[in-house]
Amino acid sequence: MPSYTPPTKDMQFILHDVLNVTGSDIPGYDELEADFTSAILEEAGKLTSEVLAPLNVVGDKEGCRLENGVVYTPTGFKDAFEQVKEGGWPGLDMPEEFGGQNMPYVMGTAVGEMFSSANMAFTMYQGLTHGAASAILAHGSQQQKETYLPKMVSCEWTGTMNLTEPHCGTDLGLMRTKAAPQDDGTYRITGQKIFISAGEHDMAENIIHLVLAKIEGGPEGIKGVSLFIVPKICVNDDGSLGARNGVSVGSIEEKMGIHGNSTCVMNYDDAVGYLVGEEHKGMRAMFTMMNEARLGVGMQGLSQAEVAYQNALEYAKDRLQGRDVTGAKAPEKPADPLIVHPDIRRSLMEQKSFAEGARAFILWGATMIDAAHRAGDKDADGLVSLLTPIIKGFLTDVGYDNTIKAQQVYGGHGYIEEWGMSQYTRDARIAMIYEGANGVQALDLVGRKLAQDGGKHVMAFFDLVKSFIKDNSGQDEAFDKEFLEPLKVASKDLQAAGMYFMQNGMTNPNNALSGSYDFMHMFGHVCLGLMWAKMGKASREALANGTSDTDFHETKLATGRYYMARQLPATALHLTRIQSGADTVMALEAANF
Amino acid sequence: MPSYTPPTKDMQFILHDVLNVTGSDIPGYDELEADFTSAILEEAGKLTSEVLAPLNVVGDKEGCRLENGVVYTPTGFKDAFEQVKEGGWPGLDMPEEFGGQNMPYVMGTAVGEMFSSANMAFTMYQGLTHGAASAILAHGSQQQKETYLPKMVSCEWTGTMNLTEPHCGTDLGLMRTKAAPQDDGTYRITGQKIFISAGEHDMAENIIHLVLAKIEGGPEGIKGVSLFIVPKICVNDDGSLGARNGVSVGSIEEKMGIHGNSTCVMNYDDAVGYLVGEEHKGMRAMFTMMNEARLGVGMQGLSQAEVAYQNALEYAKDRLQGRDVTGAKAPEKPADPLIVHPDIRRSLMEQKSFAEGARAFILWGATMIDAAHRAGDKDADGLVSLLTPIIKGFLTDVGYDNTIKAQQVYGGHGYIEEWGMSQYTRDARIAMIYEGANGVQALDLVGRKLAQDGGKHVMAFFDLVKSFIKDNSGQDEAFDKEFLEPLKVASKDLQAAGMYFMQNGMTNPNNALSGSYDFMHMFGHVCLGLMWAKMGKASREALANGTSDTDFHETKLATGRYYMARQLPATALHLTRIQSGADTVMALEAANF
Repeated sequence: MPSYTPPTKDMQFILHDVLNVTGSDIPGYDELEADFTSAILEEAGKLTSEVLAPLNVVGDKEGCRLENGVVYTPTGFKDAFEQVKEGGWPGLDMPEEFGGQNMPYVMGTAVGEMFSSANMAFTMYQGLTHGAASAILAHGSQQQKETYLPKMVSCEWTGTMNLTEPHCGTDLGLMRTKAAPQDDGTYRITGQKIFISAGEHDMAENIIHLVLAKIEGGPEGIKGVSLFIVPKICVNDDGSLGARNGVSVGSIEEKMGIHGNSTCVMNYDDAVGYLVGEEHKGMRAMFTMMNEARLGVGMQGLSQAEVAYQNALEYAKDRLQGRDVTGAKAPEKPADPLIVHPDIRRSLMEQKSFAEGARAFILWGATMIDAAHRAGDKDADGLVSLLTPIIKGFLTDVGYDNTIKAQQVYGGHGYIEEWGMSQYTRDARIAMIYEGANGVQALDLVGRKLAQDGGKHVMAFFDLVKSFIKDNSGQDEAFDKEFLEPLKVASKDLQAAGMYFMQNGMTNPNNALSGSYDFMHMFGHVCLGLMWAKMGKASREALANGTSDTDFHETKLATGRYYMARQLPATALHLTRIQSGADTVMALEAANF
Repeated sequence: MPSYTPPTKDMQFILHDVLNVTGSDIPGYDELEADFTSAILEEAGKLTSEVLAPLNVVGDKEGCRLENGVVYTPTGFKDAFEQVKEGGWPGLDMPEEFGGQNMPYVMGTAVGEMFSSANMAFTMYQGLTHGAASAILAHGSQQQKETYLPKMVSCEWTGTMNLTEPHCGTDLGLMRTKAAPQDDGTYRITGQKIFISAGEHDMAENIIHLVLAKIEGGPEGIKGVSLFIVPKICVNDDGSLGARNGVSVGSIEEKMGIHGNSTCVMNYDDAVGYLVGEEHKGMRAMFTMMNEARLGVGMQGLSQAEVAYQNALEYAKDRLQGRDVTGAKAPEKPADPLIVHPDIRRSLMEQKSFAEGARAFILWGATMIDAAHRAGDKDADGLVSLLTPIIKGFLTDVGYDNTIKAQQVYGGHGYIEEWGMSQYTRDARIAMIYEGANGVQALDLVGRKLAQDGGKHVMAFFDLVKSFIKDNSGQDEAFDKEFLEPLKVASKDLQAAGMYFMQNGMTNPNNALSGSYDFMHMFGHVCLGLMWAKMGKASREALANGTSDTDFHETKLATGRYYMARQLPATALHLTRIQSGADTVMALEAANF
């Protein structure tokens, strides 16, 4: 049975030593004293490790069950959900006005990582609710907010997002679900939606579906899509529950993983829907929440990599197999633990250096979302929009790879469901797909975000890297060589790739798009390189200032050195691939594949 | 429902245009005329695509069932196994003396790829039998051969390999299964073995277990391991079946994939065993078959990548989503097919260029095994021993990655079991683990094979690359630039890595072992680069000679160009990682992870 230890210490390090949240002028950050954040994180950690983590395998094994239109969640989920609600966790970063605790998003993100590591499928019920509530918060009418938000913030009612249809995923312009306007200002929604996470279940008294549909007679394609609230059970004017609405679950999808979450086919049959925001502006309403939603998925990539790594590490320390080639390390035992072997070390260091770097990257991203939302900081908004496809695409790709590495440490035992390592890979796999498949993230990055606002945000990123290097150079030769120099090289590779796109993408956009996936990955490496340089700096300073926790900071520096020496140089390969252009990629006629 | 089209044309190209099998002086190869191999491959292809492929999903869904000591295979497996036996496929490359057809191993390998692509879990029943029969063939007494081989060659009886125990996988020296010598020359075997593929099932009247065990009073550790035949049902002197032996299935493992194969815990309780070969020489007997067994697993990596690619390609041609940025390709349809998008192309080209390169690599390896076994060619034996960990480790890693890429093309549909793409990834995953986890392959390569026979074989490999480049340079500028030059660069990277190991591995072996995994991958890339250069040459010549099949050869060249331009340059990154040495890898105390 796998276990989970919340990485609260590392989170505290990132929040306070690296991001210096308390020193920030973002509204609400002044409350984030170390004692306060520690209390929150420890409390959340306790719940996740003691209540949610033990249900992870249960959820995977039992899955969800559909009987006569009712979906039953796995044993224990309902009770655990009650505990989550009682703790007020779903409303942590929601407005007080609707029953939330109004904490910064960065705290919701840190807590969210633990929830997701402990039980990703379970956490999605509240995750989807959070997303749906955020959309109503941003675009709903005051009446809609008052009707739905208090119940959704508490998770008494949960929420869903309904975008995909059988024939359309990325290309939502092909949507067929219809909305027929009624005289009373409501709409009647008819159509089928698929892959609806938490679409139906037994843990809440009502489910508020956010549904994209086309109003009859509206513009063609993506410009005719509107967003609707479609409650499972209609809500009376006095807030009480009324009649059952015309929405029902068609089936539960049989998936590779996240079995504990009910992924449903949802049928809308003349269901009453309430327009959110303006007609035909549904995509805009949906995309307002995109940065958060995608950051949340990137976080899932990290979350599974983290918990898988923790278990692989324990196994590597426990399992006796073979001898250290440089001499037995445990001569009193029949064999040495796996962790003596260099190739096991390599794997563990890759996992560790990724997880810690990714955590810093995501929490940094969350502070920018806070700056944008709480302080109206347009630059932060622009920068996090640029980095969002990287957070989503790069972190879920590498996060997934690392669950595979963790599973590999177990040898044959990793392949047996009993040990739980297979589940981490199967659950993590979805994060590369949903909320925009990673190829679409790469397209978004190169085709849209790079040039946004005249390329201002990517310039700002390069300036940020450059300033960091400049401000911290020349103080410590080892730090310069081990951290700053590799970051500089990698950043130059990235700039060269951007330059290649500018010079060759105009004449033939395929020259840019053929390199989009590589660009997303090389940008991800530079971001993690920057995070490691920042963490290295923080640990170097802590050591210089006589910290009592030398082990933690020495380990941090050693882990950073691994990333800089062995992972960051991947940028050169990505650059080579990008600079080879579109010719070899596009050479074949479709028929000749 | 996924489908499978046997790549017989590509196999014919490799066998005849690239490897020129008919022109070889390996005994038996003169019979491999193109018409003959075509007839075999087409016949096998028909069986695999029509009979085995449709059972692949069935096997995954149903799995195997243990009831009162009897294991039931999935619906249809038994009938299909009868058809396989009737076709004589299990004995294709087995000696005629025992009922086989005595064809070269290279033919068994080509046929094996199709079997495995169509239904990997099913094919393992005969694959394990083949391995067990090969061990008896190489090390058994004449009487043992006569007793077991005719039935095993026909698959009337199947076979298994029993190595792993709960506490020992790679480190077989820790083995606890005991063999007690009896007065009649037999042994009594007692112990538990785990992860036994095809350990028990309902498709054969007897199962011949090959079991590693320690004879009481023998040497400690790995030097005290012997190999035994332990039949499920004892065989009387007249060949008839006698009493049930003391071996039984404890349970069926619940696995991530290959559900159609019964992976069993096997309990040996005073079971009658017959020594194979000499006492305490069990490992040698087992390892004689290692090259073949590992090549077979490498082939599984290819097989799943190939069939997953085929389905991803079909989906990319069919699924309409989005528009080509350079202008609509299917303006009459609501959207263009996925295949217009550069990033989908990139993914498909990676899959295609890998599969075809890997196929050539494996079939080349099989010809070396033939040369070693049929012609006693020691150089071929040495070279294929060197390349075996690469075939196993590199091809299963990249093969697995490609099943993930193929699944990704399907977006959300790839995550739903209904489409069958998840199964390819879950089945392919085991190939990275069993028959020596890939980290162990890397260790074998760097720690043992590189220096074997004074480094003679790796030198031979470099000479081979060098000669090929020299012999083919200067005839066609484009070919030099697109194929030979990248191969030269990559080969130099590989040599530089070998040099680094020599210069730094002596003082600290961890400097070599920390880079072993990267070395395995960079060596794999150079091998595939060599294969692509050879295939490119063959296609260039075919075109120059006025082949009527210009599409095939132009496509081959275009696919090769992709590999050379975008995949082969990975060697530089691996070299950088290797040359960074052991320091960052080994820096942490185990307690500080």
